[in-house]
Amino acid sequence: MKPRGFVTLITDFGLGDWYAGTLNGAILSIAPHACIIEVTHSIPRGDVIGAAIALRSSYRYFPAGTVHMIVVDPGVGSARKILYAERDGHRFIAPDNGILPLALGTGAMKGSRFLENAKLWRERVSHTFHGRDIMAPVVAHLLNGVSPARLGPTCRNFVTRSFPRPRDFSARSAAGEVLYVDAFGNLITNIEEDSPITKGGGEITVRIRGKGIKGVSSSYESVPRGELLAIWGSSGFLEIAINGGSAAKRLRAGRGSGVDLERMRSRGKENERR
Amino acid sequence: MKPRGFVTLITDFGLGDWYAGTLNGAILSIAPHACIIEVTHSIPRGDVIGAAIALRSSYRYFPAGTVHMIVVDPGVGSARKILYAERDGHRFIAPDNGILPLALGTGAMKGSRFLENAKLWRERVSHTFHGRDIMAPVVAHLLNGVSPARLGPTCRNFVTRSFPRPRDFSARSAAGEVLYVDAFGNLITNIEEDSPITKGGGEITVRIRGKGIKGVSSSYESVPRGELLAIWGSSGFLEIAINGGSAAKRLRAGRGSGVDLERMRSRGKENERR
Amino acid sequence: MKPRGFVTLITDFGLGDWYAGTLNGAILSIAPHACIIEVTHSIPRGDVIGAAIALRSSYRYFPAGTVHMIVVDPGVGSARKILYAERDGHRFIAPDNGILPLALGTGAMKGSRFLENAKLWRERVSHTFHGRDIMAPVVAHLLNGVSPARLGPTCRNFVTRSFPRPRDFSARSAAGEVLYVDAFGNLITNIEEDSPITKGGGEITVRIRGKGIKGVSSSYESVPRGELLAIWGSSGFLEIAINGGSAAKRLRAGRGSGVDLERMRSRGKENERR
Repeated sequence: MKPRGFVTLITDFGLGDWYAGTLNGAILSIAPHACIIEVTHSIPRGDVIGAAIALRSSYRYFPAGTVHMIVVDPGVGSARKILYAERDGHRFIAPDNGILPLALGTGAMKGSRFLENAKLWRERVSHTFHGRDIMAPVVAHLLNGVSPARLGPTCRNFVTRSFPRPRDFSARSAAGEVLYVDAFGNLITNIEEDSPITKGGGEITVRIRGKGIKGVSSSYESVPRGELLAIWGSSGFLEIAINGGSAAKRLRAGRGSGVDLERMRSRGKENERR
Repeated sequence: MKPRGFVTLITDFGLGDWYAGTLNGAILSIAPHACIIEVTHSIPRGDVIGAAIALRSSYRYFPAGTVHMIVVDPGVGSARKILYAERDGHRFIAPDNGILPLALGTGAMKGSRFLENAKLWRERVSHTFHGRDIMAPVVAHLLNGVSPARLGPTCRNFVTRSFPRPRDFSARSAAGEVLYVDAFGNLITNIEEDSPITKGGGEITVRIRGKGIKGVSSSYESVPRGELLAIWGSSGFLEIAINGGSAAKRLRAGRGSGVDLERMRSRGKENERR
Repeated sequence: MKPRGFVTLITDFGLGDWYAGTLNGAILSIAPHACIIEVTHSIPRGDVIGAAIALRSSYRYFPAGTVHMIVVDPGVGSARKILYAERDGHRFIAPDNGILPLALGTGAMKGSRFLENAKLWRERVSHTFHGRDIMAPVVAHLLNGVSPARLGPTCRNFVTRSFPRPRDFSARSAAGEVLYVDAFGNLITNIEEDSPITKGGGEITVRIRGKGIKGVSSSYESVPRGELLAIWGSSGFLEIAINGGSAAKRLRAGRGSGVDLERMRSRGKENERR
């Protein structure tokens, strides 16, 4: 038996039906050595941005060579294409609706191809389930060693999207926004840990929905239970959280809510708790 | 190490407790080479019909030889038996409550046996968890090569059930009903894609809950966002959906809601979008 | 390729984000032969007792040698330590917040160590995701054969907790309480099947929230649909259930609700249905 081939799945199928399970079968029928990891099937229906954030935050933790398959596909059955791309030794298949450029960065995508070689697909393709009938078989053939060159023609004219970037981005201030609300109610922003503002001295103040948060904490428990904090989260972005609660509920904040940072001039004591 | 043996799980355990996970352990303790795919644990509690539809719609996408185990078992601990059967090279184990005849068709079931050989079970069998204590060990022994003949005696007197069939089923009309509502709110009916009514010319009109839908679409996006459509779904049945919404909510429809089809005489332009 | 190494996961991450999936990647990147079973990711946020019950009820059904990893960790990023322990050939890693002593019994824990050898961790450890950055790599190294002695120093001063034990515990009576409510609404108590009260003759009466239940049933269907029953559950504890319903909702009972047992003197007919 071959060594394992790794596949991750990100979909908006939910877990109430057989759709996610069937993807596994469609892959294993062709590549019985596949090791399939279900990153999440709970992306809100059709939420391309949510899927991209899940992918961007997870893919690099898997072994190189992993094929990441994303099925958030409101255009299934229409003329939309399906895209293959590579980055840093990882391989990706997703509908051509902006997920891969969002997650990987358009400039960092390599070897982009549209899936057009129907010989690698299920013989009969349904109108509504290209994940099962096109994407899963192609993933399996890749695991079996089929060259990406056989999937279809190289392409540059795929749909591109990008996340909103922070405005006013200096060593003293930044104006960002919330990109994602996780199941804990943590607000993940678009302000990265290696931004200019993190380099200077003096305390950072974070403002969101009229509230001010002084300093960036190093753990949820570094503030009293029930209080707001800002923290550099596990995806490398600034997050707004509540120790033991939901910042999204408390602040009535969600994707797009503005988040402003300001760095005070240092006057002796460094109050930041990094 | 042996090549992998495939197992699928369909249960009504939900994901909030350790029950589904424990089934995995009970199988792997006996058959460490098992590859277990959790098709769904979210069947509504005790919903034999829902479990049968999930099984029927998923099993054929797995490799031949797969053992499919279904634990929707309101009669656990009572005198109800547990059934083994085969179809098309797939193997199935489920409580004898009609799930397998519903999913596979009574006539197509082969090699049916009741599980009676307690030597293949956990030594101590609980009152409430035969999935863990009887079914999982038997699945594992099958993966290890134990012959089905050792499970128990052949049987014909298992519980039989069948799905409601469409009435008035001709090339001109059909009167069916909704069998299943998926997590997207799509209404899966009992009208199959290879029914007589799909063969003729002229446009099909679908009626449900007082609404009429003209034609059968080939993608969700072939109608404007928010509008109703009919489409041949991925399980081979006619589905009623809303582009970007929930048909179940909009129509207040559910299992058992009537769905009528009528084929108009063709007058020139074929309006069906298949 | 090595034989499989088994890992189970119990977390409070939920399934809506990429956190649970990322744990898989972090393990497989170091130990590609890992076989990871997700027991549950639906522990209520920060619920140490719920996590301990899930672990206690599930771990012994997995193969010996399995590494069980529990990430319910409200103190992540603070000074709390992470604990390794063994019991009965199983291995465990969890935050030092009482989960392991609760689930395994402090006296039965062997080889306890604090995770302190950062060479076995991810090079850059985040503030908020020690499951991914510390625990998962250590699990993977254990699967690869690294000796527990390399994880960190042995310890005895870990946080200990224990479940409430039944009071007034004799052959005639017991006063216990509800430990856990499962997704079916079954109330799992702290009264064990091999308690003194189960040894005597005569019928047991169970009292909870002002209701009396006569006898212990052997199946849910041994009482009429919709009626209360008591049953020895699959985890070895007395459970209060409703045939086809939720005892938690009906009784408005939850963790901590009192459950009293009384054994009547036997007068001829043994009414218990074991």
